[in-house]
Amino acid sequence: MSGLDLNLIGKKSEPTVFNYTRKDTILYALGIGAQTNELSFIYENAPGGQKVFPSYCVISGSGGIPSLGDNIDQSKFLHGEQLIRLYGPLPPEGKIVRVGEVKNIYDKGKAAVIKYQVSGSTEEGKHLFDTEMTIFYRGAGGFGGDPGPKAEPLNPPEGQEPDFSVSYDIPKNQAALYRLNGDYNPLHLDPEFAKRGGFDTPILHGLCTYGHAVRAIYHSLCGGDPARFKEFKARFSDVVYPGETLTTKGWKDKGGRYFIQVSTSRGAVVINNAYALVEE
Amino acid sequence: MSGLDLNLIGKKSEPTVFNYTRKDTILYALGIGAQTNELSFIYENAPGGQKVFPSYCVISGSGGIPSLGDNIDQSKFLHGEQLIRLYGPLPPEGKIVRVGEVKNIYDKGKAAVIKYQVSGSTEEGKHLFDTEMTIFYRGAGGFGGDPGPKAEPLNPPEGQEPDFSVSYDIPKNQAALYRLNGDYNPLHLDPEFAKRGGFDTPILHGLCTYGHAVRAIYHSLCGGDPARFKEFKARFSDVVYPGETLTTKGWKDKGGRYFIQVSTSRGAVVINNAYALVEE
Repeated sequence: MSGLDLNLIGKKSEPTVFNYTRKDTILYALGIGAQTNELSFIYENAPGGQKVFPSYCVISGSGGIPSLGDNIDQSKFLHGEQLIRLYGPLPPEGKIVRVGEVKNIYDKGKAAVIKYQVSGSTEEGKHLFDTEMTIFYRGAGGFGGDPGPKAEPLNPPEGQEPDFSVSYDIPKNQAALYRLNGDYNPLHLDPEFAKRGGFDTPILHGLCTYGHAVRAIYHSLCGGDPARFKEFKARFSDVVYPGETLTTKGWKDKGGRYFIQVSTSRGAVVINNAYALVEE
Repeated sequence: MSGLDLNLIGKKSEPTVFNYTRKDTILYALGIGAQTNELSFIYENAPGGQKVFPSYCVISGSGGIPSLGDNIDQSKFLHGEQLIRLYGPLPPEGKIVRVGEVKNIYDKGKAAVIKYQVSGSTEEGKHLFDTEMTIFYRGAGGFGGDPGPKAEPLNPPEGQEPDFSVSYDIPKNQAALYRLNGDYNPLHLDPEFAKRGGFDTPILHGLCTYGHAVRAIYHSLCGGDPARFKEFKARFSDVVYPGETLTTKGWKDKGGRYFIQVSTSRGAVVINNAYALVEE
C-alpha cells in the first residue's frame, strides 16, 4: 500500500491564504506563452483592466492540498488529469483562501490513483474556483481497494474537422520561465536529471501545456471575456519538449461543451480525453 | 534651468538595501534572453553553482540614486550612456547596500546632462560594483554651465573584421518579460503610449539591449567565469524593436579592452561608442 492511508479520504486541509500580485499573474501569462497581442493579460494598466487566464487557479490553488503523510514517495507520482472549474474571473492580484481535500484513493492494480480537490475563494467568502487533480502513484496499487468509476470517454468525432485549431510555438527556454511560477522540479530544466528520469531532454511542465490549451480555448471561444470560461478537464497523455509546436483543437459537442485535443509537431497527442465548457 | 539645482552635484544618497532572491536573478537572465544552454544563469542548482550576469548590477543598483527634487520633468529624460564596473561576481541572492551620487550636471546647450553614480556593496562592506548612468534632460540646458569634457571616441578600426560577433533574436514579447525586473515604463509595452512618444510600436528597454550585449561579451571573452568581466560602457544611439535580431561585435584594442558595437537586423546601430574590459 506504499504508505497510503485510506482514512485520508475526505480529509480537508485547514484554509491557507495565497497572496499574489499583478507581477505574478503577468509572469504566469508569459509563462504560458502570452504575446504582445494578448496585451490585457500582460499589462497591469491595459485598457479595460488587466485580465487573468482562468488556469491561473492551478497556481493560486497549489499548496492547498492536504499532506498524505511522511511515507509517500513523490518521485513515483505522475500527474494524470487536471480539471478547473471557474465561478467568475480571477482577480489580477489579491488573496485567495484555499481548502484542499483528498477526494478519493483508487486502486488501479499497479498504481494507486489519488484525487485531490482544491476550492479557492476570496477572503469575503466568494467562491472563485475548484480544481481537481488526479495523481498516478506508480507501484502503490494492488491493495484490494475500490478501482473507482470508469472515466467518461471524451473523444472528438472521428474524421470531422475541428471547429477551431490554434498553434503555438514553444520557445526552448519556456520551461525555464514557467517554473518561476513555483514548480521548480529539475525534470523541466536539468538535462542530467531528465536523463535519469528516462527523458532525452527536459520536458515542459504538464500545467504549462495545459495553460497553452487554455489560451487557445479562450481566444477561440470566449470573445475576450474570461468570465465565459467555465471548465476545462484534460488528461496528460504524453510529454512536450520545449522547442515543439503545440496545436490545440476543439470540436463542438453540445451545451457549450467542446472536445479538446492537444498535439505536438512530432505527432504526439499530449492532452486527450479532454473537454472545455464555455458560456455561449 | 528646468528646476535643476547645481548644488545637487556631489550629493550622496543615504545607503539603501536591495534584497533579491535567486528567482530575481533568474528572471533577469531570462529577461535579457538567456537560453537553456546558459543553464548556470537560469538554474539555482546548476552544477558549479548559479551565476549572475554582471549587468544585473543595473537592477540591484537602481533605486539607489538621489532625488533631483520635485521640479523635474522625467518625461524629458533620455538614457544616454551606461557604465558598469565590477569588482567581483554578483551573488545569486542576498542584500546589496547602494549609495548613489549626482556626479555632475553639464550644460550641453539644448539639453542638460546628469551623471549619476551608484556604488553597490555587501552588507559586510565588500565593494561589488559601481554603475554610472548619463541622462539627457531635454530642454534643460542653456543655463551657462560647464559643458563637461569631450567624450573619448571609441570607434572600432575601420574596415577590420570584428574579433567576435554574436547574434540574438529578440522575441516579440521580450520587453513584456524584461519589465518584470522593475522598469514598468509603458513605452515598452503599451502601443498607444508608444505612439504618443513618437514610436510606431513599443521599444525594447535600453538596458535590455545592454544586457544582451553583456551576454554576448561574456560568452565570447570570459571563458565561463563572470569574475573576468570587469567593465562595460555603452552609448545608446538608437532604439530596438522587439522582433529584431541584435548583433554584438567586438574588436580587440589593448589591455583586455574591446571596442563594442551593437546593431539590429533593420541596419540601425543601437549601441556605439562602447568598450568592454575583461581579464585576459
